[in-house]
Amino acid sequence: MRGAILYGKDDVRFEERAKPAILKPTDAIIRISATCVCGSDLWSYRGISPVSGPTPMGHEYCGIVEEVGSAVTSVRLGQFVIGSFFASDNTCPNCRAGYQTSCQHRESIVGAQAPLLRVPLADGTLVATPDIPSNDLIPSLLALSDVMGTGWFAADAAGVKPGSTVAVVGDGAVGLLGVLSAGQMGAGRIIAMSRHETRQRLAREFGATDIVTERGDEGPARIKDLTRGIGADAVLECVGTQESMMQAIRSTRAGGFVGYVGVPHGVELNGEELFYSHVHLHGGPAPVRRFLPELIGLVWNRKINPGKVFDLTLPLDQVAEGYRAMDERRAIKTMLLP
Amino acid sequence: MRGAILYGKDDVRFEERAKPAILKPTDAIIRISATCVCGSDLWSYRGISPVSGPTPMGHEYCGIVEEVGSAVTSVRLGQFVIGSFFASDNTCPNCRAGYQTSCQHRESIVGAQAPLLRVPLADGTLVATPDIPSNDLIPSLLALSDVMGTGWFAADAAGVKPGSTVAVVGDGAVGLLGVLSAGQMGAGRIIAMSRHETRQRLAREFGATDIVTERGDEGPARIKDLTRGIGADAVLECVGTQESMMQAIRSTRAGGFVGYVGVPHGVELNGEELFYSHVHLHGGPAPVRRFLPELIGLVWNRKINPGKVFDLTLPLDQVAEGYRAMDERRAIKTMLLP
Repeated sequence: MRGAILYGKDDVRFEERAKPAILKPTDAIIRISATCVCGSDLWSYRGISPVSGPTPMGHEYCGIVEEVGSAVTSVRLGQFVIGSFFASDNTCPNCRAGYQTSCQHRESIVGAQAPLLRVPLADGTLVATPDIPSNDLIPSLLALSDVMGTGWFAADAAGVKPGSTVAVVGDGAVGLLGVLSAGQMGAGRIIAMSRHETRQRLAREFGATDIVTERGDEGPARIKDLTRGIGADAVLECVGTQESMMQAIRSTRAGGFVGYVGVPHGVELNGEELFYSHVHLHGGPAPVRRFLPELIGLVWNRKINPGKVFDLTLPLDQVAEGYRAMDERRAIKTMLLP
Repeated sequence: MRGAILYGKDDVRFEERAKPAILKPTDAIIRISATCVCGSDLWSYRGISPVSGPTPMGHEYCGIVEEVGSAVTSVRLGQFVIGSFFASDNTCPNCRAGYQTSCQHRESIVGAQAPLLRVPLADGTLVATPDIPSNDLIPSLLALSDVMGTGWFAADAAGVKPGSTVAVVGDGAVGLLGVLSAGQMGAGRIIAMSRHETRQRLAREFGATDIVTERGDEGPARIKDLTRGIGADAVLECVGTQESMMQAIRSTRAGGFVGYVGVPHGVELNGEELFYSHVHLHGGPAPVRRFLPELIGLVWNRKINPGKVFDLTLPLDQVAEGYRAMDERRAIKTMLLP
């Protein structure tokens, strides 16, 4: 079997790898229908998070159950399933509290950019769709595996409610789906912070009512201009840099909420500034598993179309071009078809 | 009139000061019934937050309205009133959202360790008691001006609910009243982190069910031991140091809440650790004004007795000894009577 392997900065290859096999009775093997490149894959592709050696890539997936271990009971051969980027048992106290990405037995999903994938803890990780989906639903179902669930968690963590004024920092796939999520939760106003015309257009299509192009100190100043001088009720931080995090905190009203899902790289929060900001802060790796049943329902009933973030689709063997296009911001997100 | 003035490290004096006067039509002058020394006063007394020159001290107060400006309508001469350490208009959007300490027109209260005090924005700041209180209620009413309201906010920000498992970091007056607050909110278990026998005793009297003496890395480990390995639902951070803040975050379960009210001194939060902790973080200067009506009711009806934190009472002219006793941890909190 061939799959994507990252060798180092700017060097991802499509190469022969061992075919995955059932290692534990709780495993399942999935035949991948579609996979994709994640914004977080770019941290290592760009050499910012260096890899120690050749690393199988990919943690977003949906597909058909091809094989299950002897202890698997909740998914069956031939079902179409989606899972999160962390496997979880869905029974430990953290899972039961809705934080499956802090599962006491969590395992990372590794190597989904390939035709076959081993998913540990299959019963607690995978959720089956009502039936085999038609092809046009595949991109949106794939998006649930990470970016849509992550945008949804950002909005959920930021406590978006009917009528909320929401600002979204970051116009990558997660930020754009944060806009979509805020709209679904009934936000009255959604301010997307973006400088890229294509992304602004998709943000508007997903429900953004305002676009702010300012950054740095000017970003929060502009948000305050738009919100009676006080800031937004809810701000979604979907980048993970020091600048984006401070932009989010400073754009939030006293007593408002920052939902942050961008994996932090070099972020340090000054305690005193945070204290006097009076914001609520919540986030982390999105517990996608918590949201999968609801989000599958929304996609299945064609209420949402998060698959629109895939503006480039390539055959899996062109994975290197998929990374390049996202790195150069020519594509928002690349879908890969085995 | 004589009042407390801080000259620098370890040097607080009781000296002649100008008698306060109505400066704006929204001001009131209060004749102080009781005032006290705050843990936060110690930051400057210890030279950690240096003062630029002789500084009138004190921001906790209750007493009788002696004079009001022409625009004051909600408090009358002769009423017994309590106010917060920040004056607020209680009408701006931040106040209406319940964050009066982020009032768009907030002013610091300065110089309450004196017989008379000017309170700006009297209508938005002061709350009158139902009648003139009996003397035995004065300590508890005074506590509402800051420490009790702050402990209450810590518990509120940490989302304490009936049945919650709560841990409290810090055994100063605020921490102890955080214990009391968590109990009032129905916490099922309250773990006080304290090494001082007197404070442990008061914590138990206020409702603590467990005492943890470990600190540093061992503190959170002990909390996890007591909570099925996952951490507390709600942790109240009532100190404001790097160590106490990390102790709070690391003692909280995934999806749990840290309510932090200790004014941060040199605290820097690592974004990545915070991200993977999955905690909710909320705090800041307590919006005491929001809680005053409810807390006055609880004290008035003798449901709570937060005045117990005053284990030293001195005449105001012995204010210097009041600071010394708290600095040396001989007293939890000093009440001063003019």
